[in-house]
Amino acid sequence: MFYTDNRLQFPVRVEQPDPLFARALQQAIGGVEGEIRVAMQYFFQACGARGDPKFRDLLMNTAAEELGHIEMLATAVAMNFEGAPLSLQEEAAADPVAGAVLGGINLKNLLSAGLSAMPVDSDGVPFNMSHIYASGNIAADMGANVTAESTGRILAVRLYNMTADPGMKEMLAYLIARDTMHQNQFLAALEELGGNENIFPIPNSFPQAEENTDFNYAFLGFQNDGSEPPQGRWSSGPSIDGNDAFTSRPMEPLGEVPNLGRARPNSGAQAEQE
Amino acid sequence: MFYTDNRLQFPVRVEQPDPLFARALQQAIGGVEGEIRVAMQYFFQACGARGDPKFRDLLMNTAAEELGHIEMLATAVAMNFEGAPLSLQEEAAADPVAGAVLGGINLKNLLSAGLSAMPVDSDGVPFNMSHIYASGNIAADMGANVTAESTGRILAVRLYNMTADPGMKEMLAYLIARDTMHQNQFLAALEELGGNENIFPIPNSFPQAEENTDFNYAFLGFQNDGSEPPQGRWSSGPSIDGNDAFTSRPMEPLGEVPNLGRARPNSGAQAEQE
Amino acid sequence: MFYTDNRLQFPVRVEQPDPLFARALQQAIGGVEGEIRVAMQYFFQACGARGDPKFRDLLMNTAAEELGHIEMLATAVAMNFEGAPLSLQEEAAADPVAGAVLGGINLKNLLSAGLSAMPVDSDGVPFNMSHIYASGNIAADMGANVTAESTGRILAVRLYNMTADPGMKEMLAYLIARDTMHQNQFLAALEELGGNENIFPIPNSFPQAEENTDFNYAFLGFQNDGSEPPQGRWSSGPSIDGNDAFTSRPMEPLGEVPNLGRARPNSGAQAEQE
Amino acid sequence: MFYTDNRLQFPVRVEQPDPLFARALQQAIGGVEGEIRVAMQYFFQACGARGDPKFRDLLMNTAAEELGHIEMLATAVAMNFEGAPLSLQEEAAADPVAGAVLGGINLKNLLSAGLSAMPVDSDGVPFNMSHIYASGNIAADMGANVTAESTGRILAVRLYNMTADPGMKEMLAYLIARDTMHQNQFLAALEELGGNENIFPIPNSFPQAEENTDFNYAFLGFQNDGSEPPQGRWSSGPSIDGNDAFTSRPMEPLGEVPNLGRARPNSGAQAEQE
Amino acid sequence: MFYTDNRLQFPVRVEQPDPLFARALQQAIGGVEGEIRVAMQYFFQACGARGDPKFRDLLMNTAAEELGHIEMLATAVAMNFEGAPLSLQEEAAADPVAGAVLGGINLKNLLSAGLSAMPVDSDGVPFNMSHIYASGNIAADMGANVTAESTGRILAVRLYNMTADPGMKEMLAYLIARDTMHQNQFLAALEELGGNENIFPIPNSFPQAEENTDFNYAFLGFQNDGSEPPQGRWSSGPSIDGNDAFTSRPMEPLGEVPNLGRARPNSGAQAEQE
Amino acid sequence: MFYTDNRLQFPVRVEQPDPLFARALQQAIGGVEGEIRVAMQYFFQACGARGDPKFRDLLMNTAAEELGHIEMLATAVAMNFEGAPLSLQEEAAADPVAGAVLGGINLKNLLSAGLSAMPVDSDGVPFNMSHIYASGNIAADMGANVTAESTGRILAVRLYNMTADPGMKEMLAYLIARDTMHQNQFLAALEELGGNENIFPIPNSFPQAEENTDFNYAFLGFQNDGSEPPQGRWSSGPSIDGNDAFTSRPMEPLGEVPNLGRARPNSGAQAEQE
Repeated sequence: MFYTDNRLQFPVRVEQPDPLFARALQQAIGGVEGEIRVAMQYFFQACGARGDPKFRDLLMNTAAEELGHIEMLATAVAMNFEGAPLSLQEEAAADPVAGAVLGGINLKNLLSAGLSAMPVDSDGVPFNMSHIYASGNIAADMGANVTAESTGRILAVRLYNMTADPGMKEMLAYLIARDTMHQNQFLAALEELGGNENIFPIPNSFPQAEENTDFNYAFLGFQNDGSEPPQGRWSSGPSIDGNDAFTSRPMEPLGEVPNLGRARPNSGAQAEQE
Repeated sequence: MFYTDNRLQFPVRVEQPDPLFARALQQAIGGVEGEIRVAMQYFFQACGARGDPKFRDLLMNTAAEELGHIEMLATAVAMNFEGAPLSLQEEAAADPVAGAVLGGINLKNLLSAGLSAMPVDSDGVPFNMSHIYASGNIAADMGANVTAESTGRILAVRLYNMTADPGMKEMLAYLIARDTMHQNQFLAALEELGGNENIFPIPNSFPQAEENTDFNYAFLGFQNDGSEPPQGRWSSGPSIDGNDAFTSRPMEPLGEVPNLGRARPNSGAQAEQE
Repeated sequence: MFYTDNRLQFPVRVEQPDPLFARALQQAIGGVEGEIRVAMQYFFQACGARGDPKFRDLLMNTAAEELGHIEMLATAVAMNFEGAPLSLQEEAAADPVAGAVLGGINLKNLLSAGLSAMPVDSDGVPFNMSHIYASGNIAADMGANVTAESTGRILAVRLYNMTADPGMKEMLAYLIARDTMHQNQFLAALEELGGNENIFPIPNSFPQAEENTDFNYAFLGFQNDGSEPPQGRWSSGPSIDGNDAFTSRPMEPLGEVPNLGRARPNSGAQAEQE
Repeated sequence: MFYTDNRLQFPVRVEQPDPLFARALQQAIGGVEGEIRVAMQYFFQACGARGDPKFRDLLMNTAAEELGHIEMLATAVAMNFEGAPLSLQEEAAADPVAGAVLGGINLKNLLSAGLSAMPVDSDGVPFNMSHIYASGNIAADMGANVTAESTGRILAVRLYNMTADPGMKEMLAYLIARDTMHQNQFLAALEELGGNENIFPIPNSFPQAEENTDFNYAFLGFQNDGSEPPQGRWSSGPSIDGNDAFTSRPMEPLGEVPNLGRARPNSGAQAEQE
Repeated sequence: MFYTDNRLQFPVRVEQPDPLFARALQQAIGGVEGEIRVAMQYFFQACGARGDPKFRDLLMNTAAEELGHIEMLATAVAMNFEGAPLSLQEEAAADPVAGAVLGGINLKNLLSAGLSAMPVDSDGVPFNMSHIYASGNIAADMGANVTAESTGRILAVRLYNMTADPGMKEMLAYLIARDTMHQNQFLAALEELGGNENIFPIPNSFPQAEENTDFNYAFLGFQNDGSEPPQGRWSSGPSIDGNDAFTSRPMEPLGEVPNLGRARPNSGAQAEQE
Repeated sequence: MFYTDNRLQFPVRVEQPDPLFARALQQAIGGVEGEIRVAMQYFFQACGARGDPKFRDLLMNTAAEELGHIEMLATAVAMNFEGAPLSLQEEAAADPVAGAVLGGINLKNLLSAGLSAMPVDSDGVPFNMSHIYASGNIAADMGANVTAESTGRILAVRLYNMTADPGMKEMLAYLIARDTMHQNQFLAALEELGGNENIFPIPNSFPQAEENTDFNYAFLGFQNDGSEPPQGRWSSGPSIDGNDAFTSRPMEPLGEVPNLGRARPNSGAQAEQE
């Protein structure tokens, strides 16, 4: 169950409203690496968590935190639209260099939302909940969360570098810090689950003897000329999961030319296919 | 540039065609954790790779491999539809227990594709390319790939457990093995990039002094009663990136009640809001 | 800012797990009339609310409530999957009449989520955040919320009628009650905004003198034979907003045949169009 | 069955073509509050209407009207692209202040449609038919239509305020007038269905005795500190449906901490979860 | 402008309601090859037509026809749901063999639409208007329409073969006939535009001398072993557009290894990439 | 199975990087008429091909070619972002006329991809794999491919006309040439399948005697006044498939007013509908 106190988690200040930066901030709300994604991802992972309940609680607490981040960013978007032109005449009257606002924003923020935030990305594309990864495997989920926080921090850094507004930089410095912690906390959860040598290959509950053991630690090359693929840590030495050693070789086709035969009558094919 | 030899990478055999299993296999083609996703993800990461070119080559080779996996799975889907009913009468004539085929498959496989594979998931939802993560940050990308291969292997294991067909089990044992290797090879790439202590927090090019350092290694609790959040490796001890030590505390709101003021005239609000 | 206490808002009990009912419940989570929709809709309306802050608080409190409903339903979905078959063999071994489970569920719940809930509807289609209506007009938003709660209650009633499980009926009786209240509370908000005669036409801030006053209270018919359109409360008597009286008449075209002229050279048209 | 006469319902004139306004008009075609939505919504509601046929006829007539609105708007979009640059050189040669056209439009209107209208919104996102609400409940549908016409009129007002072109203002004054009527006509339909006291709670066919009557007229607060939620018409006095009286109180969790137990073997979880 | 007479274009009879066939029919409404697609495609092509107006009129008339087809199919869907179970108990009470209805239908047809048609395909996926192809090139559009009617007729044939209901067969025999005509009428439009030798390559307004003339009539092979690609009408003889002769050869890479260099500072990459 | 040599199929040069043109090029990658579409369409058609295997090989070779086109275009996009501003300050410091870059690009290319290509269209909308048409009917597929290459060449021509960069013009002259060939090669395949008189109506395996023969060669008019529809090659003379002769007439409704009766109890309708 969730509660609110109507207050912002961290102060949101905008010294110089900038509608184009509002558009950029939309990526942090409704982009695939944005806050709706992490809030809902941790929420659904928590709801489906099986096993030690401390992971569920970890996830639900951070879901609550991320909901507060959406709230902060939505407020920041609306504040950056302060004073934006509502008409082509207003725009034309503005400084031409500073102008070009209406063409540069997501028009839906004006036309559909009345200068407020929307659950869309920086190009106006609505967030799609297929991006909520909750696999039922706690290690895969924690890894997915490290990934989400990595792209989330990259985005926050790019936004931080994009603006010169002190208020926005302060807010983003907070969000970047939280992304640092969240990367670390989900890495810590993976360590608590045993670290690389225990958790991989995910899922670790499948007996590796049932895998095709000719292919589970070989780096395969698909160079057209049959040459060796690029070498690196992945082509020799012990595997990262500690279960075997890497090898490397060009791949050759082991299967036949596929042949589905002729089409069945009454299946909507051309007569020539039957 | 890409080439083909029209042959399958690995043999695809189906002893007992099963249209419901064909539906399940669709998840491995067009699901968010399926082969279209990894093929295209590695492809786009390679196309945008900056820095040491060996990572680009690593990615492009594995993209080529994954294209061959789509080909295998698409063949397997069509083969599992062998003998599926095309009409309600055919279905009714079948064994009632073995029946219920038409209701159990994605009807699009029959109606749109003529008993062949489609780029959709196991519930008939088309794959959406927003799931291609290519961030321009090589560490984030490699981490995203470990995640993709983790969920991919979970899926392949579930499919392996779902079927009793020896041909299908053999094909899946191959794909599971490749997922094992792919998890390891992208983990190896992360090791080559310096391991956890060097690559995190991602992006490692942002000066951490500019973060809000009161919040970058603190696990924050959002329990309604102000109690301590769940403790674990994430709440004390050195941080995983080696840059600081974890702390833990309940969070309190630092910002104000947000107030966007009154609506602007001519902005489409009700008169009462202006 | 949001908080959690990890507890469910209302007890969730399942006496007889039913995977098909789990699929049906998914509509109440990720359907367009489901709980993600209302939670996020009220959240974004609150974040963009301008004018009297009590509406923002009303919305944010109910957003918090709806988050708890998602949590309840996600728990109910997982509980209804208890004992579901994981393989075609398990299914075949089951009672044939009670069988047909794997064909009848969204396979993603098994293959992607490990028998847990997902943010998808009852046919496995992910929720899309374009369904979050937050217009910046408080009356339009409240009306949209009455609509959302109406379709939400219809859905809950259909689910209630579909199941015989006492635990599920009890949970749904709670959710139906909340939908009753939510319809009433948003209707109350509309009354507080002045009732039909004051709030309509939305937005009430636009001067009606600028409308085309030949057409703003006329019910227009488009019957092919030019006959009168269907009569009702909408074709005569005072308008509901109290500003005029209804009339009714067949419509005739007032514009010309549109003519965009010839295509511009170099615009990619055929030569014959230029 | 539908017929056409190839003429526009109302004159469409553009005195000063403006490609950016063409982009804005796209929202009225393919936005979630646009004309495709209402045309198709009324069409599907009519096709599924059960009960008194006058509602079906009301809906189908207005569907026919809205099809004509799409036609008008599509013509207006193409006319506003008149003279738009086709190349970066053309653009550079133009007045710099009036320039920035190519960056400000949806490029698909040029690249995919050759300067014509598309079924997309003002940010180029295609319309998705999940926005067609047709519930099978006539009161819910009529309420959804009032909502659609409310957001539609807000949009039309914003477009009216955005342009100074007399032709476009005239066309929008017509469309705004129609939205006024459509709000009123669907409100009239609700009045004919009995008005607030008879139609709510929707669906009115469900016996309220089966609801959880402790919760169906209580405004619940979710303030973190357990304080009273915001008071208003919704917290005391008779309910709007006339069936009870409002009360108000803070909510407390009535359910337990959810516990899904351990993961099933062979379900793709980590070994630690089983 | 559009008109209606509320009547069906062709009789719709269902002798034996079959909810599974209702699901299949949904593909003909909201599938990518369904009637919403062709209705809206011809409509938008007409609205953007430039050049000889007879093509616009041709398109708009057929758009009107297709709207009537949606109406017929939506009626057929609802009639096939007649008597479908609303609850798991109703279903269990039915004949087990004839049962499995609730698992076999799109549950949204019941839960969201109350046993009526929806603008979704046979797996419950909503139609997306990105499938409306209207290129601004009249020959490309007519070709796209032949394609749409081809897949449409394939679908109708598959539906015809799937059912044994005389009423449904009669309706589909009508729709199949119309698809025959529509293929022919759009082929006739292409003939009127000059036939293959005049209309191809589309667009025919681009001077072929500006193409890379080493590559515009060569069938290129991408076989891994450098062997000749498959031979056919496409590898020798005059080209179909009559402008040149086909040749055939294996392709070799003409470009370099791409190299984007190092990442820019402050662009969110890892330090190792800069 | 697929192979790579890491080289570009054709040289990609950019003399004057232009971020706005990078945005336009995105349409050729991720637009519905772009290269992902054709690559994946031919790939899936090949995987499902039944009948003469030369068509499968034709398709798979061209699929391999198109993958190389994506690679070229993705490289071109990244090269056109060379030197693009990363911050609002950088942008402000630039020449105001040449400026307005950040507002004119898809911000996701910067914020999510770090100035690299993405699988999205020119307005930032991700490609959706529902656009992969693979019907199981070889003639329909070849026709769909002619259509895809027609819209693809229109797009490439528009891009060619949009830019003045010699490197980009050279690359596009190559791609336009390939589209010329691809239109011709798929037309050649249709000729090999028998030409218009043999392949139409598609599917040619359905006995036309089962069609409604009153309607399969009649051009039907839907003019409101019952007048003759537009005449052309489609209204008289032999049909293009050679099976009959065209006629033309206005259509009249043959079906009744549809009547679904009253709503079932417990189906979620209003009481007034039951």
